[in-house]
Amino acid sequence: MIVVMKSGSDDATIQHVIDRIGELGLQPHVSRGRFRTIIGAIGEEAESFLPKLKSLPGVDDVLAIMRPYKLAAREFHPEGSVVRVGPVEFGGRACVGIAGPCAVENDTTIFQVGRAVRAAGARMLRGGAFKPRTSPYSFQGMGEDGLKILRAAADELGMPVASEVMDPRQVELAVRYVDMLQIGARNMQNFTLLSEVGKTRKPVLLKRGLAASVKEWLMSAEYVLAQGNKDVVLCERGIKTFEGAMRYTFDVGAVVVAKRETHLPVIIDPSHAAGDRQWVPGLTLAGIAAGADGFIVEVHDCPEDAMCDGPQAVFPAAFAEMMDQCRAVAAAVGREFPEAE
Amino acid sequence: MIVVMKSGSDDATIQHVIDRIGELGLQPHVSRGRFRTIIGAIGEEAESFLPKLKSLPGVDDVLAIMRPYKLAAREFHPEGSVVRVGPVEFGGRACVGIAGPCAVENDTTIFQVGRAVRAAGARMLRGGAFKPRTSPYSFQGMGEDGLKILRAAADELGMPVASEVMDPRQVELAVRYVDMLQIGARNMQNFTLLSEVGKTRKPVLLKRGLAASVKEWLMSAEYVLAQGNKDVVLCERGIKTFEGAMRYTFDVGAVVVAKRETHLPVIIDPSHAAGDRQWVPGLTLAGIAAGADGFIVEVHDCPEDAMCDGPQAVFPAAFAEMMDQCRAVAAAVGREFPEAE
Amino acid sequence: MIVVMKSGSDDATIQHVIDRIGELGLQPHVSRGRFRTIIGAIGEEAESFLPKLKSLPGVDDVLAIMRPYKLAAREFHPEGSVVRVGPVEFGGRACVGIAGPCAVENDTTIFQVGRAVRAAGARMLRGGAFKPRTSPYSFQGMGEDGLKILRAAADELGMPVASEVMDPRQVELAVRYVDMLQIGARNMQNFTLLSEVGKTRKPVLLKRGLAASVKEWLMSAEYVLAQGNKDVVLCERGIKTFEGAMRYTFDVGAVVVAKRETHLPVIIDPSHAAGDRQWVPGLTLAGIAAGADGFIVEVHDCPEDAMCDGPQAVFPAAFAEMMDQCRAVAAAVGREFPEAE
Amino acid sequence: MIVVMKSGSDDATIQHVIDRIGELGLQPHVSRGRFRTIIGAIGEEAESFLPKLKSLPGVDDVLAIMRPYKLAAREFHPEGSVVRVGPVEFGGRACVGIAGPCAVENDTTIFQVGRAVRAAGARMLRGGAFKPRTSPYSFQGMGEDGLKILRAAADELGMPVASEVMDPRQVELAVRYVDMLQIGARNMQNFTLLSEVGKTRKPVLLKRGLAASVKEWLMSAEYVLAQGNKDVVLCERGIKTFEGAMRYTFDVGAVVVAKRETHLPVIIDPSHAAGDRQWVPGLTLAGIAAGADGFIVEVHDCPEDAMCDGPQAVFPAAFAEMMDQCRAVAAAVGREFPEAE
Repeated sequence: MIVVMKSGSDDATIQHVIDRIGELGLQPHVSRGRFRTIIGAIGEEAESFLPKLKSLPGVDDVLAIMRPYKLAAREFHPEGSVVRVGPVEFGGRACVGIAGPCAVENDTTIFQVGRAVRAAGARMLRGGAFKPRTSPYSFQGMGEDGLKILRAAADELGMPVASEVMDPRQVELAVRYVDMLQIGARNMQNFTLLSEVGKTRKPVLLKRGLAASVKEWLMSAEYVLAQGNKDVVLCERGIKTFEGAMRYTFDVGAVVVAKRETHLPVIIDPSHAAGDRQWVPGLTLAGIAAGADGFIVEVHDCPEDAMCDGPQAVFPAAFAEMMDQCRAVAAAVGREFPEAE
Repeated sequence: MIVVMKSGSDDATIQHVIDRIGELGLQPHVSRGRFRTIIGAIGEEAESFLPKLKSLPGVDDVLAIMRPYKLAAREFHPEGSVVRVGPVEFGGRACVGIAGPCAVENDTTIFQVGRAVRAAGARMLRGGAFKPRTSPYSFQGMGEDGLKILRAAADELGMPVASEVMDPRQVELAVRYVDMLQIGARNMQNFTLLSEVGKTRKPVLLKRGLAASVKEWLMSAEYVLAQGNKDVVLCERGIKTFEGAMRYTFDVGAVVVAKRETHLPVIIDPSHAAGDRQWVPGLTLAGIAAGADGFIVEVHDCPEDAMCDGPQAVFPAAFAEMMDQCRAVAAAVGREFPEAE
Repeated sequence: MIVVMKSGSDDATIQHVIDRIGELGLQPHVSRGRFRTIIGAIGEEAESFLPKLKSLPGVDDVLAIMRPYKLAAREFHPEGSVVRVGPVEFGGRACVGIAGPCAVENDTTIFQVGRAVRAAGARMLRGGAFKPRTSPYSFQGMGEDGLKILRAAADELGMPVASEVMDPRQVELAVRYVDMLQIGARNMQNFTLLSEVGKTRKPVLLKRGLAASVKEWLMSAEYVLAQGNKDVVLCERGIKTFEGAMRYTFDVGAVVVAKRETHLPVIIDPSHAAGDRQWVPGLTLAGIAAGADGFIVEVHDCPEDAMCDGPQAVFPAAFAEMMDQCRAVAAAVGREFPEAE
Repeated sequence: MIVVMKSGSDDATIQHVIDRIGELGLQPHVSRGRFRTIIGAIGEEAESFLPKLKSLPGVDDVLAIMRPYKLAAREFHPEGSVVRVGPVEFGGRACVGIAGPCAVENDTTIFQVGRAVRAAGARMLRGGAFKPRTSPYSFQGMGEDGLKILRAAADELGMPVASEVMDPRQVELAVRYVDMLQIGARNMQNFTLLSEVGKTRKPVLLKRGLAASVKEWLMSAEYVLAQGNKDVVLCERGIKTFEGAMRYTFDVGAVVVAKRETHLPVIIDPSHAAGDRQWVPGLTLAGIAAGADGFIVEVHDCPEDAMCDGPQAVFPAAFAEMMDQCRAVAAAVGREFPEAE
């Protein structure tokens, strides 16, 4: 860590900081400039040291040097990790397409949509049984009935299935039915939920929060990893900015940065970033070109009847066309999507 | 609602939209312009209609006219609400100061700090027993032991106490010890948690999310209100923007807007917005001048030993000085803070 | 336009709005709901009507329906435009690579770098003679001497050259030396400068402002077009957000939206978005996959000696490698980059 | 400056950085940690050193320690500056109210509005003769005719007048008529314009850019100061964020930070932040409570006829009421506004 003193700090103030650095088990290196003194604090950094040092009188700023996410950082684990969900691998040469309706709505749509996306080349199914909705008056998901339908569809189609959990109390139930636990953007810093899925041995799909920096996203992954669950896949899904042309601003640079900053696989969710189906293919191709390990996309055969997020659901035919383009772009960057069946 | 059709939409496409509007129980009013057709959909708007209409072919945009938060909107409840927490009232002429350490750390600090802030004029105590921390390696709070200490301090000092819950499973425990349940910024859209506190009869302090619009904030209040709990106090605590001079950007305009948009009381949390104690008094005075019904501020008698957020904790003496300024500014805008004891 | 009245507006207030709409030459269509009245104002919308209507008593909001950028909007000009800069075409099937050092620094670098990027497949040269610098103490560019060197390099290499103008007084000089006038992000709403370059017959490269919505960007293009200069190429270069991993957030979605919203060509500037050379190739590939018509990239053979922006300058060898990847991705989306010579 | 090396950098790479630091005239202090090496570079920092060091192989990050705005920083000029515009002083105990219509529109409005705001306690007049408009089809201001009317009004009313310049070519003209040159938000980084007003001896009112950090704002002030013009008054007017309740997010914290970070006076422009007159008083009071040295507000006697920005123009009666509240709040924080005449 580096401690920057305020200009004009006197010797006693500086000495108090030096003493405190020593008490934390770090070695102080003092550099006195004409206006400012800076003190390097060398040794094993702990996240908690930062506010302690910043609270000291005379301290202007404290800068951490090491990544605080020891388990997630590529700095400490140079090799890329591969996360397996049944027969599907995230983080290898092959990219993974996950597709399906926003929510499980009844016992037919998921089968129909699932068959269509599998035929187009998707390798995993998605569908929500617990739905985080901004309005308390909106459809909140089918709960366990939805999970049962999801399981049945996954089994019939031979595709692993990912589904969201919103509440630590849903985790035990969900692990019985689904192959991958999804943490939504609004729960990226729901720390008890992160710990709970970290205690399972199910792979976790961790969406980036709407206002989360890449660093905070990786700190949330660290919560899961710290519980012993090594199978975390990150998912960029757009951030909140002033730009209103799409629902969120798809941060393709976060894919580029995250792929270098962590060894965990990184996929994209263009549907929620776009909020409108017309933008989904463009964002998807951009993400794959940038190095994403796959995508999760919402598909519906009759979006105007969808229980949620109809405007962003891609039609099955458009999805098939998009998969063809994805295959071409993936090949261009040395990756591949499986051929349609 | 207003449906804006894409330019060049043909009659059949427009008719399909008109039919759908009718099926939703709304009355369509069609206005054809040279380039565009717009269709007013008059009647009782439901949040769920919007995506349904937006999913229809030929629809460019759908605009909601009515506030989707029926219970929170001043539009439907013109009188300001008063929320009572023991002897303390939020939303009346008097402003309320809530103060205390970030976390309950041991069984002495909360008493010492509590005595100091009460003497300065604070009327409620704060302190966290469950702490949302970005790092899994940071202090996570004392849990039930912390709640017990909080209760004891509140009883001894004769001040009601507010404390955060992060997990639906903590609610039942917390209601036994605290007088007001706090929902943190990162949980503003933790919908199952909102429902859970909505089922209690404890007043709720709802912080605004880091990336939440005022509208989304009020939708989250609606979650609590919809469960029958009428006692919600809103709290502005800064939003994420590009500006890094403080930890967050304190959105004083949100106080101004929220006071007009909802009948619920609105207070401010300058400590988390600032992230540094030197900025706390300035933000507090700004918020009170803008019409806030009070504040919640972190105070610590030895910030360098604080288990969390030391840099933003105000010293007791500075807090007392700030209270004096608050009294003056409140009086200037026709409000009041109680005199120090 | 659509005028939304406040709830509870009385008949006289509504009639006043209706009268004003009539005076503007628009036809009012009134829809009265239970709580709110909305009034469609059908006819030729002018940008200036919006604030006039919004100023009226009882008006809650006014929504524009038609694009205010008549010349830039694809709504009114469905065919994509092609902008020619000498032998180079923007907006056709071929993508264009523009490359060169940030600034003209002396009379050798631009030739060396130019030769290298031309060999790798770049078709236009870049280099700044007038440099917008955040600090008054930084290198401000070589001025006319720089323009002369640029011209000489362009002539020797047989590549057209783009260079920035910052001040209306520089335009006359710059048109004598360069083939394309660049407007930087910080001048996107420098309206007198936009008008000035609009009066020339040189193609204009218009960077998006750091806080400009796509709509505002197109309004700025309209300023140039409205002066009779039809040759505008738009350039996405990142926006200001809370995310600090790169210097700016590269908004790849803006490329997708702009390509649909306007008939003008759209290219990308990954260098300024990234601020660090390691991120440049990833962003470039993302932009091309999303449909960009080309890119402008900073290249330097000795970045540590660059007079400005060294950290983001790509080495010539890395640029050549990146061009190969661009060729592959362009082919994957039905476009092409010319082969290296 | 502090140079942070990438983990695993070898000795030769580190030595190259040490050598370069020495060549810049700085003294290197090396601290080797287990994973990382950090190098303090002690001495006179120049803004240009940062990119040079960041360009070096093996360098992960470079952190500046000293303020790059030597003339604007309070660090080097602890005393607050007072800027005089005729009889009016910014930065003293008294706060200054500047008010008037958005634009000079004709030869009567400015007199009428001027008389009203003077009677209410405003001490300076505002009015635009050159108007930056997002649309090329909107009213662009009356130019020199407008300046003449402004001067006549200022003389008759005995109030100094501030007016905007948008183009370096307007400066010579404007200095003949107005008492204070205003630089608008969109021109905050129009560096040639800043230099041009810096060469005059007229006080400058420098608005903060829509996406400018406080640091960048002060760097722009430095441009003016570096030309020898010491009379700069800063003006916070809202930044672009995701929140759409007001037109911009009024960053009251920037007032608090700027007052500590620079010795220059800081005022607020609540009108452009709000975009709607109903929010103007609340924001104004917040800004004054936070320590602003005054405000600039738009007032119009018939906003629905205003040539621009009618929705945000306050009526004269509301302005008088707001001035009364400002007087009370100013007194509460130890400042004062002059009594109404």
